[in-house]
Amino acid sequence: MENRIITISREFGSGGREIGRMVAEKLGIECYDSDLIQRIVEKSGLRADYVKEGGEDAAGGWFSTFLADRTIGKTEQDKLWNYQSQVISELADKESCVIVGRCADYILRARADCLTVFIHADPEKRAARAVREYGEREENVQKRMKDKDKRRAAYYQFYTDMKWGEARNYHVCLDSGELGLEKCAEIIAQLY
Amino acid sequence: MENRIITISREFGSGGREIGRMVAEKLGIECYDSDLIQRIVEKSGLRADYVKEGGEDAAGGWFSTFLADRTIGKTEQDKLWNYQSQVISELADKESCVIVGRCADYILRARADCLTVFIHADPEKRAARAVREYGEREENVQKRMKDKDKRRAAYYQFYTDMKWGEARNYHVCLDSGELGLEKCAEIIAQLY
Repeated sequence: MENRIITISREFGSGGREIGRMVAEKLGIECYDSDLIQRIVEKSGLRADYVKEGGEDAAGGWFSTFLADRTIGKTEQDKLWNYQSQVISELADKESCVIVGRCADYILRARADCLTVFIHADPEKRAARAVREYGEREENVQKRMKDKDKRRAAYYQFYTDMKWGEARNYHVCLDSGELGLEKCAEIIAQLY
Repeated sequence: MENRIITISREFGSGGREIGRMVAEKLGIECYDSDLIQRIVEKSGLRADYVKEGGEDAAGGWFSTFLADRTIGKTEQDKLWNYQSQVISELADKESCVIVGRCADYILRARADCLTVFIHADPEKRAARAVREYGEREENVQKRMKDKDKRRAAYYQFYTDMKWGEARNYHVCLDSGELGLEKCAEIIAQLY
């Protein structure tokens, strides 16, 4: 049987990662999120913190890399993108699984057996969740969240040439704040 | 019991209207789409063809009305928008139902009991469907479709100040081309 993949893109604090885990558990398949980082580190030889930060949540240099003159060669981030694409493609070749983040939807776009999901929620609900679940400080959490989403959106747009969070780029988009994580996981598992 | 409303926004040819009917049938409630036009005509005294064309699919003058100088008063289209808002709000007050198109999601946004849905599909699948189901001519169907979507998007953005087809504006967005109409209807009915 062909491997079937579910990719989950998500706004910060929307619970997309947790939904991914719930879906994987329901279906008895693996869910890859932060595990991806370790695999990319092993493949690329790049530093773990660079891989972590240089990806979609890049805290430093993410914007300068977009502006870099590519006629003189690939940036470090471009190399990271290539390793990331390889790791995600290899996972998809190896087994059915859920992959959270890292533009997996775009990387696997040519595969017919891929269900692409986007999870979002109201900023207030996301902020409350980020404080509760990820231990984010309450002051300015909305500002930090906005910043994270901005980075993810810029990263996605730069490497995929598509708009992050636009409904037509995904098979299913769900408001986890309104529907609840469990209901979202149920629907995704059902569509698999 | 409070009335519960499902609003369906859709790309041209995505089958959103048919999905609306299927959902309504499953739930034993009414589905309003072209019936809205008749109600708005009755309420407003405007001509039926104007109501039909002056709405989101406006064929003539839609753009000029956006550019019109509103300091000298409301345009005909603004009046139409007001009547349309009234008709939709009254329906929502009267009964649980499915409402297709006409920015009902925005008009009813303050209601907690409203499930907002956006249906989209790959342009090729939509074109094939438009030819098959609506008897659209095959020549240039993609061009006409693009034009229709552009009008809907402009209309939506003008009156709601939100971006049409952006995932975060809806509780659920579904790709009917990939998932199939029946599956979409099932999910929506299940979330109700």
